[in-house]
Amino acid sequence: MNPQRQRELSRLISRLDRLNPGESLPEVQDGREIGAAFRIGVTGPLGVGKSSLINEIARHYRRRDMTVGIIAVDPTSPFTGGALLGDRIRMPELTLDNGVFIRSLATRGAFGGLAENANDAADLLDIFGFDRIIIETVGVGQSEVDIAGACDAALVVFEPGSGDGIQAMKAGLMEIADLFVVNKKDMKGADRFVLELETVMEMRDRSRSPAVMMTSAHNGEGVKELVDWLEGYYDKVQHEGRLQNRRQSQRIDRIKRAAKLIINRRFMAEVGSERIEAAEKSHLPVRDAARQLVEEFLSGQIINN
Amino acid sequence: MNPQRQRELSRLISRLDRLNPGESLPEVQDGREIGAAFRIGVTGPLGVGKSSLINEIARHYRRRDMTVGIIAVDPTSPFTGGALLGDRIRMPELTLDNGVFIRSLATRGAFGGLAENANDAADLLDIFGFDRIIIETVGVGQSEVDIAGACDAALVVFEPGSGDGIQAMKAGLMEIADLFVVNKKDMKGADRFVLELETVMEMRDRSRSPAVMMTSAHNGEGVKELVDWLEGYYDKVQHEGRLQNRRQSQRIDRIKRAAKLIINRRFMAEVGSERIEAAEKSHLPVRDAARQLVEEFLSGQIINN
Repeated sequence: MNPQRQRELSRLISRLDRLNPGESLPEVQDGREIGAAFRIGVTGPLGVGKSSLINEIARHYRRRDMTVGIIAVDPTSPFTGGALLGDRIRMPELTLDNGVFIRSLATRGAFGGLAENANDAADLLDIFGFDRIIIETVGVGQSEVDIAGACDAALVVFEPGSGDGIQAMKAGLMEIADLFVVNKKDMKGADRFVLELETVMEMRDRSRSPAVMMTSAHNGEGVKELVDWLEGYYDKVQHEGRLQNRRQSQRIDRIKRAAKLIINRRFMAEVGSERIEAAEKSHLPVRDAARQLVEEFLSGQIINN
Repeated sequence: MNPQRQRELSRLISRLDRLNPGESLPEVQDGREIGAAFRIGVTGPLGVGKSSLINEIARHYRRRDMTVGIIAVDPTSPFTGGALLGDRIRMPELTLDNGVFIRSLATRGAFGGLAENANDAADLLDIFGFDRIIIETVGVGQSEVDIAGACDAALVVFEPGSGDGIQAMKAGLMEIADLFVVNKKDMKGADRFVLELETVMEMRDRSRSPAVMMTSAHNGEGVKELVDWLEGYYDKVQHEGRLQNRRQSQRIDRIKRAAKLIINRRFMAEVGSERIEAAEKSHLPVRDAARQLVEEFLSGQIINN
């Protein structure tokens, strides 16, 4: 992709980031087909080496002559209030390669639509023709579930010994994982950690058990096997027809979440702070005050329409 | 509080847990005054000793002849899908004391209303006359912000050396903290950790800087001072009129969140899965499909009303 197209894409993502939930980009609207790219979600706790791993995965794909788009969803830093890391600073080796596009998205508090923005940005990368899209999220909360859960393959990355991380992980993230990657395989206790992880998986007694692989992003060990696994997985789900079903239910989830954002915004805009403050002063219990405001809003639609 | 009242309270909280966002308990509705109790939110990463600390705080309050209600909001365990720990098993010393009520609330996925339920349960404890209410949450995500942020004082607990925990913490939680508690003060590096924490606070350059205290819940060290601090804080905000303002804005936030839950549920119930699935099949971009559904829902209110 030439630099001009890259800049155009970058501008579109910036515009996306500023949209209200009820707005959309004409560039996404004009009926272009989405779905040619293979979307890979990579998540896990802070400090397990996700960026290095993605760097290695991207390099493998480039050797196979595929273009790679990367979206890094950064947590809002408690120190700066913004993205922790810059776009291309994260993965310096890839910055001069026009077959790679890297973009950070920061947490926006306003309408809680970070997951929607990340998934929509992935749609843009898809429209722009990237073969493989990697979305990185940091953490183990609901946003990570919403983002990785909207990918074709969800990878959860750990480092050996982070048993607390497994414990603290929300159930939803365990559910959506297609592959557990134990990075830093040279660390002490890596084999035992993989055993623990597999035991935990068995204990949970699910019909669908994610695979477990070991990598070492700093020297690239295991990354070729990981990319082989990803491609094998993608082929398999495509041929079995599972990919289409999965994407359909993902789109349904995304539509539901987007609709909730839109309706919440409509509610807030139309009811307004003054009426909410008045409801607070009524000293009704919280749920009753809320219900009353919702009734007012919904019947107000009669007048407005 | 006699065992019969305790059982009644417990049943009410169970009923609360099963309510839809649009429903409320008549027992909370009948105009009884809420606000006599001092609500203390305690949050922080897994394993820093929050339960032991709360146990010690409750014992101190009991010595001062105050009754204590404790709500422990447990994360859904990835292993069991339910609450990690039972109600009274957590704090065995307090179980035989009728002046203490302990109740766990599990994460419910259905409508995402865990924070609402926890805050409503605190209202019930308030109505039932507890002098001090402690709400424990595990983690550093949005639910913790929503719960601790609805208390009169928000405590964030760390253990020394958990610098990663500070890093991973959402900005919102740093904003709402009134007091940082460094528990396990006997651990190596505790003093340095407190310095780090204070430096981080200074770096953030906020007008309102939370206090930092050290405790050792396992031998009770520092807990008396912590309770003194809490009571001093409570007195101060009451006399300065800040408590009332804070509670008002908290109630406004709670009403907004409750209203969103109600309206989202109304939307899902009225639009229904079939129409959402049809919208997915339309191959419109996600945001446009969502906007169309919202428009249909809102204009449907004309017909329904």
